[in-house]
Amino acid sequence: MNLKPIGERIVVKMLEVEEKTASGIVLPSSAQEKPQVAEVVAISKELAGKDNFNIEVGTKVIYSKYAGTEVKLEQDEYIIVKLEDVLAIVEE
Amino acid sequence: MNLKPIGERIVVKMLEVEEKTASGIVLPSSAQEKPQVAEVVAISKELAGKDNFNIEVGTKVIYSKYAGTEVKLEQDEYIIVKLEDVLAIVEE
Amino acid sequence: MNLKPIGERIVVKMLEVEEKTASGIVLPSSAQEKPQVAEVVAISKELAGKDNFNIEVGTKVIYSKYAGTEVKLEQDEYIIVKLEDVLAIVEE
Amino acid sequence: MNLKPIGERIVVKMLEVEEKTASGIVLPSSAQEKPQVAEVVAISKELAGKDNFNIEVGTKVIYSKYAGTEVKLEQDEYIIVKLEDVLAIVEE
Amino acid sequence: MNLKPIGERIVVKMLEVEEKTASGIVLPSSAQEKPQVAEVVAISKELAGKDNFNIEVGTKVIYSKYAGTEVKLEQDEYIIVKLEDVLAIVEE
Amino acid sequence: MNLKPIGERIVVKMLEVEEKTASGIVLPSSAQEKPQVAEVVAISKELAGKDNFNIEVGTKVIYSKYAGTEVKLEQDEYIIVKLEDVLAIVEE
Amino acid sequence: MNLKPIGERIVVKMLEVEEKTASGIVLPSSAQEKPQVAEVVAISKELAGKDNFNIEVGTKVIYSKYAGTEVKLEQDEYIIVKLEDVLAIVEE
Repeated sequence: MNLKPIGERIVVKMLEVEEKTASGIVLPSSAQEKPQVAEVVAISKELAGKDNFNIEVGTKVIYSKYAGTEVKLEQDEYIIVKLEDVLAIVEE
Repeated sequence: MNLKPIGERIVVKMLEVEEKTASGIVLPSSAQEKPQVAEVVAISKELAGKDNFNIEVGTKVIYSKYAGTEVKLEQDEYIIVKLEDVLAIVEE
Repeated sequence: MNLKPIGERIVVKMLEVEEKTASGIVLPSSAQEKPQVAEVVAISKELAGKDNFNIEVGTKVIYSKYAGTEVKLEQDEYIIVKLEDVLAIVEE
Repeated sequence: MNLKPIGERIVVKMLEVEEKTASGIVLPSSAQEKPQVAEVVAISKELAGKDNFNIEVGTKVIYSKYAGTEVKLEQDEYIIVKLEDVLAIVEE
Repeated sequence: MNLKPIGERIVVKMLEVEEKTASGIVLPSSAQEKPQVAEVVAISKELAGKDNFNIEVGTKVIYSKYAGTEVKLEQDEYIIVKLEDVLAIVEE
Repeated sequence: MNLKPIGERIVVKMLEVEEKTASGIVLPSSAQEKPQVAEVVAISKELAGKDNFNIEVGTKVIYSKYAGTEVKLEQDEYIIVKLEDVLAIVEE
Repeated sequence: MNLKPIGERIVVKMLEVEEKTASGIVLPSSAQEKPQVAEVVAISKELAGKDNFNIEVGTKVIYSKYAGTEVKLEQDEYIIVKLEDVLAIVEE
């Protein structure tokens, strides 16, 4: 991957999310602010040097999709996301 | 639960709220800013280290739903909320 | 009452206001910013510790309803209001 | 009068304004930002203590009505106005 | 004239502006931000005391009409304008 | 020319721009933010005194037309533009 | 090229981007925030002097097209982009 985010941004790749409830009902999702579980694939130099910064390549995060920008490079789709739009880290 | 909020955010789970008056009339609710009683399930590291911060896991809070982001992980639904959108603590 | 407001917020209970003129004509009211006479029932710790702060439990205030958030707990209705939306104190 | 404004606010009572031109034509007025000649009836403690503050009870002012909040107490109508919405003093 | 502007404001009276091109075609004008040539009739005390302030009573200025507030006092029409909406001085 | 801009503003006169591509196709232009090549005819005193300021009378600039204000004085049309809306200098 | 950007801006020329997926399906693109791969052709003096600034003439960048301003000079089309709208550097 050769996308280097600038400023307080990271690059993520989306993971598939389960959109059914336990009983199998598909939940409607708001197109405007659909949360996303995604895997971090790149971090800007500005963020990498920050103290107490817990996000690294491979971290799974939830972000507000509304704020991200989708980019497609060589058949792969990435999302460039500002740090302020990363809501939480998902641990397994 | 394995959701770790980032920045000035907490994670809550919604509690059922009584939406009838004493006389049994169902109150209409504004979808845009419906207050919520919810239980806190996670607090970001940034908030946990703050002085005079009274919210902890298990605290019941009222927040402006309009500002929260709903997330579903392994059949459970959570809401990630910014501290500025937490209006009050509910004590029993 | 067991609602503890957070930040620069107070909790009030609405009082009935006279909506007729001297001649008995009912005044139309804008739903968007209808001023309210309300009685203060709780003050956040942040506000209680402020210098020259004249609002206490029992004070009657006028606020911009548009900015408040209505909450119903155990059949009582409260409004959580930011200090900046409290316009005036009403003295009797 | 027993309305005590809070913060950078004053309370005024509207005066009747002449809405006809010299030739008797009634001017249309924009409901959204109709300037008002009003008499000051109360000043917040914060403003009263300010240096070089020339507004006092009895001063006539022009303000942007759009920003004021109308309040009716005991058959009288008042407007609570932020200082930043007071445009000019009218001297006779 | 007895209008004393408050804060960073001046009071102007509008001058007639030529709205035709050299060839006599009337130009359409946007009602929302029609520039105005106006003569200054009053300056706030705050502005009068500022260093390097070149506007005085009698100066002709261009301003963005959209931001001004029209006032009519004793058959005369004035406009109260914030300094930030005064675009240029017109010299003859 | 007798227009003296105030604050961080310049006055420009528009130059004709070529709106066809090499192959002669006329490009549609967005009315809202059509870039302009214009010649600077006046600079405010505030800007003229700034360090490392490279714009002078006669400089050709590109600006966002949406932010400028058109003024017509004695059959000539000028545009008053804030420095922040000047995008680039065009050198020949 | 003789376009010299001002302030925190760069000038880029757009590169063709592949808009099909591996399977040949053309992706719909949002006109409002379509990311762009572009080549930098000019950098403002302000940006060129910044520490740790990694963008130079020839660098390939992704930016939010919504924020850029298109300019056509002598049959060539350029886009003037603010640094804050440059999302990432694309390395080959």
